[in-house]
Amino acid sequence: FVTFLCSPNNEIQDWNKTGMERNDRTYVSRNMNHKCRCFCFIYFYFFADLLPASDGDIKTMTFLQEVVDILLAYIVESFDRETKVIDFHYPNELLQMNNWELQDEPATLDDILISCRATLKYAIKTAHPRYFNQLSTGLDMVGLAADWLTSTANTNMFTYEVAPVFVLLEYVTLKKMREIIGWSDGRGDGIFSPGGAISNMYAMLLARFKMFPEVKEKGMSSVPRLVAFTSEHSHFSIKKGAAALGIGTESVICIKADESGKLIPADLERRILEAKQKGFVPFFVSATAGTTVYGAFDPLIAISDICRKYNIWMHVDGAWGGSLLMSRRHRWKLDGVERANSVTWNPHKMMSVPLQCSALLVREEGLMQNCNQMHACYLFQQDKHYDLSYDTGDKALQCGRHVDIFKLWLMWRAKGTIGFEAQIDKCLELSEYLYNKIKDREGYEMVFDGKPQHTNVCFWYLPPGIRYMEDKEEKKKHLHKVAPVIKARMMEYGTTMVSYQPQGDKVNFFRMVISNPAATFEDIDFLIEEIERLGQDL
Amino acid sequence: FVTFLCSPNNEIQDWNKTGMERNDRTYVSRNMNHKCRCFCFIYFYFFADLLPASDGDIKTMTFLQEVVDILLAYIVESFDRETKVIDFHYPNELLQMNNWELQDEPATLDDILISCRATLKYAIKTAHPRYFNQLSTGLDMVGLAADWLTSTANTNMFTYEVAPVFVLLEYVTLKKMREIIGWSDGRGDGIFSPGGAISNMYAMLLARFKMFPEVKEKGMSSVPRLVAFTSEHSHFSIKKGAAALGIGTESVICIKADESGKLIPADLERRILEAKQKGFVPFFVSATAGTTVYGAFDPLIAISDICRKYNIWMHVDGAWGGSLLMSRRHRWKLDGVERANSVTWNPHKMMSVPLQCSALLVREEGLMQNCNQMHACYLFQQDKHYDLSYDTGDKALQCGRHVDIFKLWLMWRAKGTIGFEAQIDKCLELSEYLYNKIKDREGYEMVFDGKPQHTNVCFWYLPPGIRYMEDKEEKKKHLHKVAPVIKARMMEYGTTMVSYQPQGDKVNFFRMVISNPAATFEDIDFLIEEIERLGQDL
Repeated sequence: FVTFLCSPNNEIQDWNKTGMERNDRTYVSRNMNHKCRCFCFIYFYFFADLLPASDGDIKTMTFLQEVVDILLAYIVESFDRETKVIDFHYPNELLQMNNWELQDEPATLDDILISCRATLKYAIKTAHPRYFNQLSTGLDMVGLAADWLTSTANTNMFTYEVAPVFVLLEYVTLKKMREIIGWSDGRGDGIFSPGGAISNMYAMLLARFKMFPEVKEKGMSSVPRLVAFTSEHSHFSIKKGAAALGIGTESVICIKADESGKLIPADLERRILEAKQKGFVPFFVSATAGTTVYGAFDPLIAISDICRKYNIWMHVDGAWGGSLLMSRRHRWKLDGVERANSVTWNPHKMMSVPLQCSALLVREEGLMQNCNQMHACYLFQQDKHYDLSYDTGDKALQCGRHVDIFKLWLMWRAKGTIGFEAQIDKCLELSEYLYNKIKDREGYEMVFDGKPQHTNVCFWYLPPGIRYMEDKEEKKKHLHKVAPVIKARMMEYGTTMVSYQPQGDKVNFFRMVISNPAATFEDIDFLIEEIERLGQDL
Repeated sequence: FVTFLCSPNNEIQDWNKTGMERNDRTYVSRNMNHKCRCFCFIYFYFFADLLPASDGDIKTMTFLQEVVDILLAYIVESFDRETKVIDFHYPNELLQMNNWELQDEPATLDDILISCRATLKYAIKTAHPRYFNQLSTGLDMVGLAADWLTSTANTNMFTYEVAPVFVLLEYVTLKKMREIIGWSDGRGDGIFSPGGAISNMYAMLLARFKMFPEVKEKGMSSVPRLVAFTSEHSHFSIKKGAAALGIGTESVICIKADESGKLIPADLERRILEAKQKGFVPFFVSATAGTTVYGAFDPLIAISDICRKYNIWMHVDGAWGGSLLMSRRHRWKLDGVERANSVTWNPHKMMSVPLQCSALLVREEGLMQNCNQMHACYLFQQDKHYDLSYDTGDKALQCGRHVDIFKLWLMWRAKGTIGFEAQIDKCLELSEYLYNKIKDREGYEMVFDGKPQHTNVCFWYLPPGIRYMEDKEEKKKHLHKVAPVIKARMMEYGTTMVSYQPQGDKVNFFRMVISNPAATFEDIDFLIEEIERLGQDL
């Protein structure tokens, strides 16, 4: 592919300054008599020449097309295994590699294009088939197209008035997600929020309001000491939420998990009774469907039995594992989710919807509205001419709310439920392949026994020099340093990225996760070889 | 402009199904021997044919280019005054106008393009020069390009590791904003959050933590009864935040505003003393710089004197008015802002950055981190190989955080500070023009006396039939219904959109706001004519 742009004197010039893949379109100006007589005018113009400038339409289209060409080249490059995942530089280096400072004077549009190229040059290629660093990886082409459209529509979810289609699509999609959870006829409520942490916070807020509605007006001083329960392996957002909501982190009681990371129901019940004996009021249990590190699924049926027995709100944090509900082969791992009062489910993780896309689903209708509404009369006027039940903004904590729905909806349309299912099943197959490959391989040790439930594969790589150390403490001390060094080398070579962390008394280990639809069996093979290549001398 | 795509038999077809503006590029396939021999293959393919499919690059580029062509046509159309602002349909109608339901089976890429066109057909044209409905209006071309790039980079703000450039740009931009506020050397802290309501909630959270750090662990039961203060004209997010944080809406004391909507400092002091006498602890004052309805600026210097006297955290909610700091002509309205402990400032409003882009700026360094951090060891590993001060995620309430910085940074680069200043000054000029034009015009009545401080112009339009009614109550009753009917007609004709609401004992009035850089004096003239045309028979 080559992008050519012709200068006014009709000499063909190479437009592309970045050395990126060439692009096979020629630009033909409408007002020129022959093809290939385009002008490089974007180079010499400023933002003020673009729309809404009165003759800004051609300049705008040319400018935006230039940006799109940069993006298209970046996308194609990102999927290419010959490309680096990252061109890493230390913060101080990167600060000096470009002029990032903000100025008083405007820059030319040419400079803007250069800034776009520089930004992408140092960006992580999250679409890269060997990018495994987070729970959200990959770049979906239909999702991306939808996000571009969302930006272009540039509106706000708070009322039907300003986002008619998006509000309807949110309604349709939330209903579908509730059906998949198993709530009859998809009844209930929900919202797309800015991430799983906020979705979990909403759940805690609703649970508190359900039990003590007076807390909205009177605050925590009007209610007894509340306590929440979650597994020791749960996401930190449960504690963060408790701190913010004025409940306090000490009122989040961490329940023991078994060796594979699942909450132990007997310990939950014991701690509930203990709390009650102290006069505290248990109001919220957050079960995790897919823990961040181990990918464990808490036993939802047993937990829901306990929640019912003690009349406690049951939340399922399925930010990571909720998407397995789309898979007929794997959804049994969430059996019991239909008994929950609320569910967090982030399509931006396992379903590869572009960031951000997180849903909170709530079984009881109307509760969110009652909990959060403030009746702002300048936004939710009651004398509007349409059905006001579509003005959903007052049930949110946010006032303005970004449109996160369209990318999920359009991807769902493009893939169908079965397309998502196939994508998820494939990621789980890849992780099983990785697990089978390393579980008995020399130099590897699994962090916990048994086949992973989600795509998380947690393991230590022991370089030859450590492998046969006799002193256990010494060995642990060395091993703790291995993963960080291998990770740093991965980033410096730019070949792949995978996360590591300690957990409890377990020293640093790799947590491999696969949510990237671009990954293949060969990429898993590559990862193993790369860890060994980068770690063998340690 | 025309987009042509050639079918395999080389017949030129009109690709554009929507009747939108034509587009002057011809597509030339790389592997074909002559131009204009493109294939309509996108019609017959599915998402699975796009990247990461092994031969997906050409198909992906063609598909994304098709989407971009739809978007470019939509953009050009949106700025055209001959186009409707909205093609309005009632929710039930709109639900039936298209098949929005989600299916099990995948749709073709052709169907995806059709869905994109349908979505835009019924969308509000927020770029339209006559769209005045919200505080956020308009569509900036450089901001849009930046948002497209952000979607393509598809990453997360929590660590430098996965968002090196964006993290640095956030650092650079927050520093610049703090310098503009007037904090020495731009020192302090801050974060981009998902909207002004969340920014305000952060401020309240910080204020509480600053006074009672034990609240993080022990919750509200460990602290005395806290009270917050804000003007009766302030944004509803202050109460929403108080409800969420367990403080309770009754602990938000509403201070009287004067006729023009500014908080009365004497009333603030009186209410603080009253609260203290009751044994409550005043911990937070939220002054508003640019109220939602009147656009009033609270007297910040007087408020800061009171806050200092009683040792209360002073927050400035400048979500709407903060941008006036960029204008040498108007920044005096925020005199005293440099004395605040925290400031909310939404560049997505008056600076026309695409939604969402909201900053919370904090004077004290390190406080956010202490208040919100939970030390998740799987994300904020302490043995990474780079300077960890750039891993800013733990100071957020969110875990994953959308990249909102790049659009602001790139626009700033393109316009320079002086470009933003000119844009803001122009909007204020337009509102002064509107004010001058209607203040003595027959049939208009201003809601409050005097020149508006921001671009908010609040007025009643009295149709001839109401104008001379003697019975004041009857007149008010009729007048209350005028704005909603005119607004409904505006939407049905699709010619313009402007907001209305009641306020206190004042019946429904129009609140005109101008943040749309595409608006001109002629558009203001048009608005007045349109209100009169649509309202004269009422």
